Amino acid sequence: MKLSIIVIGDEILLGQVTDTNSGAIARTFDPLGWQVASVSTVGDDARDISDALNRAFDSSDFVITTGGLGPTKDDITKKVLMENFGGRLVRDESVSENIRRVFDLRGLRLNASTEAQAMVPSSCRVIQNLYGTAPIMWFERDGKVLVSMPGVPFETEGMLPEVARQATEHYHSDMQLLHRSAMVTGITESALSERLENYERGLAPGLHLAYLPTPGLIRLRLDGHAKVDDTEFRQVFDRAFSKLCHELGRNLIYDGDATAAEILLDTLRRRNLTVASAESCTGGAIASRITAIAGASDVYLGSVVSYSNDVKHKVLGVSVDDLAAHGAVSRPVVEQMARGVCELTGARCAMATSGIAGPGGGSPEKPVGTVWMAWCMDGKVNSHEFHFPGNRARVIDRATTEAMLQLVNHIRNHE
Amino acid sequence: MKLSIIVIGDEILLGQVTDTNSGAIARTFDPLGWQVASVSTVGDDARDISDALNRAFDSSDFVITTGGLGPTKDDITKKVLMENFGGRLVRDESVSENIRRVFDLRGLRLNASTEAQAMVPSSCRVIQNLYGTAPIMWFERDGKVLVSMPGVPFETEGMLPEVARQATEHYHSDMQLLHRSAMVTGITESALSERLENYERGLAPGLHLAYLPTPGLIRLRLDGHAKVDDTEFRQVFDRAFSKLCHELGRNLIYDGDATAAEILLDTLRRRNLTVASAESCTGGAIASRITAIAGASDVYLGSVVSYSNDVKHKVLGVSVDDLAAHGAVSRPVVEQMARGVCELTGARCAMATSGIAGPGGGSPEKPVGTVWMAWCMDGKVNSHEFHFPGNRARVIDRATTEAMLQLVNHIRNHE
Repeated sequence: MKLSIIVIGDEILLGQVTDTNSGAIARTFDPLGWQVASVSTVGDDARDISDALNRAFDSSDFVITTGGLGPTKDDITKKVLMENFGGRLVRDESVSENIRRVFDLRGLRLNASTEAQAMVPSSCRVIQNLYGTAPIMWFERDGKVLVSMPGVPFETEGMLPEVARQATEHYHSDMQLLHRSAMVTGITESALSERLENYERGLAPGLHLAYLPTPGLIRLRLDGHAKVDDTEFRQVFDRAFSKLCHELGRNLIYDGDATAAEILLDTLRRRNLTVASAESCTGGAIASRITAIAGASDVYLGSVVSYSNDVKHKVLGVSVDDLAAHGAVSRPVVEQMARGVCELTGARCAMATSGIAGPGGGSPEKPVGTVWMAWCMDGKVNSHEFHFPGNRARVIDRATTEAMLQLVNHIRNHE
Repeated sequence: MKLSIIVIGDEILLGQVTDTNSGAIARTFDPLGWQVASVSTVGDDARDISDALNRAFDSSDFVITTGGLGPTKDDITKKVLMENFGGRLVRDESVSENIRRVFDLRGLRLNASTEAQAMVPSSCRVIQNLYGTAPIMWFERDGKVLVSMPGVPFETEGMLPEVARQATEHYHSDMQLLHRSAMVTGITESALSERLENYERGLAPGLHLAYLPTPGLIRLRLDGHAKVDDTEFRQVFDRAFSKLCHELGRNLIYDGDATAAEILLDTLRRRNLTVASAESCTGGAIASRITAIAGASDVYLGSVVSYSNDVKHKVLGVSVDDLAAHGAVSRPVVEQMARGVCELTGARCAMATSGIAGPGGGSPEKPVGTVWMAWCMDGKVNSHEFHFPGNRARVIDRATTEAMLQLVNHIRNHE
């Protein structure tokens, strides 16, 4: 199945807001066997929306729009949709009730423009928006479907599973779709695809392996499509996934779909461990990525961002002599940082980073991208020097991911 | 002038990578008086790229493509471009030299597929890519221009000013374009537009005020377009900008275009101050946003992410009794955190946060979104309770921005 996406909003065209909805839609539908044929972005303009709609239906029968709704924009988008699918604006009591519920929850008072959101085209079926006030509208005509979703990423991402479920039900009632992911580290994408060449060639019909590389971490996803009455298919799929994990060996860091921070938290929770970080060049990015995950507080105790040498010494207890003799970006310093933050916070595990993120600060011996890291568990410390390519943001990003994944390895090797 | 953007790449359609190039292009060209007519995203498919090209030229004479280049993709995109603009692949010595330069810099060895990047259509003019190996290609035919840029955001963003300069030169030789920004805080967008209604109505011809709101911070941009021979225009423009700053009064937090972290760093540098942070609910996001800026180390000393109460007490010296009596999310605790991190790091200023980012942990008295903050300067402490809407990521984001902007105000009020 193919789907097309139309992103509506002046704020996206102007570059004030980065569209993340189209990516979220693609990632939700891709594992279900759907292909995104095109994404087009248009402003809040009736003619442009209408043109985009016609082009989208040229290339696919299923179209999702995001945005173009909300108190000030409603008129344009709903009008265009009614030109295409017919109907007239009618008041929907269930939407009105949902709006009141959301406003109550946020302690806000209703106003007229928000109440107007309860007016929906009579030609659509409403899917209630559990995360906001703009209703999700499902239109059908001549075998073509259009689903209008809100522009707020939080609302669209929250409602996507339900929209995908209904889309699958609408089209795929005789197919079963299976997928499982494995997270891989310590190997390049090209080396990995070479190693898995025979495995991929031997996959049973209906099975397919997808590579989804991110900096420092490759996600492998096994997809399977078969008829519902193929009762042995799940076993075939599970065997293929087990075989994949076996082929990956030590490079398999996690069985499932997860970020580096999620893998680390899961590893710690399973072993009842606590963790802290001592960050120089990553500057709080490790702490920030871990605490972005709800519930991190049960294993994460805290971090010291020791940007100045004085803080490295006074707070983390790094030796002034070592700072002078080896510099802040060195093995003895990161090792003392890791030990120091364990002692300070009482955490059983810690990671420490010190490096040159650039663009300034590099030297022939320690060029930009040089990062020393140390990992500590129950007093045992390992350390390693890395050289990451790219600009400041990329060096910080790679160092952050690597620090967390190597701590996972350090914990496992410790066992 | 109108321009259209085509984003090329399977990785974008699949949602593996979020496109940020189209936004960067819009933000670069918008202040120069250009309007983005459309953005379309297509996969690495000759037919889809060709269709997108034809549609783009229907709505504008100037088209920028990003992506679809690189060792493995070159063939498709260059072939489509030659179908449209003619020419044949020829070796460009200046590109070849640039590739060798980039590889030398990164300490890498050339390979055949990278050398193939030096083959460019004879119908284009090359703009040398100072940030990578894929050349920027400028095509012209029948008054229409297409500029092919690389997909790597770092390279495209780096080269955009030069591409914009050449585009302006190509079309706008008789126009002068001026723009200046003012950052505004402590007022909603609608209240601000009400206050500036008369000001906007009184603007001289050719002047225009644009509102660019981000969470917690509104950017106002004054644009001016006039003929080059209008010698008094710059004075008119400067007077209008001064008047704008006057109208904004205390809500003007920065004269120029800057993020909250940049405003804070600038405020500190001008006064020779140093800063630290003590973060609970923001979990390192303040530190991370400050240290993402190159050169932050001259004023930023460090941060303690005190996620557990134990760390709040042991590292920052927060009273155990206050933690028990008032809870971690309370005035006495954040005030002690701010003071504590100043003492610990020796910084003259500090900000501290403690709140409930959710989704769990809320209560009727302290619902999700409740955040206490304190700011310290030379021992003088202020604190305030906030209630931020939205999910965990939004609460953390808003709290991070607010902590930095309020510290700027705290420093200024202190004078």
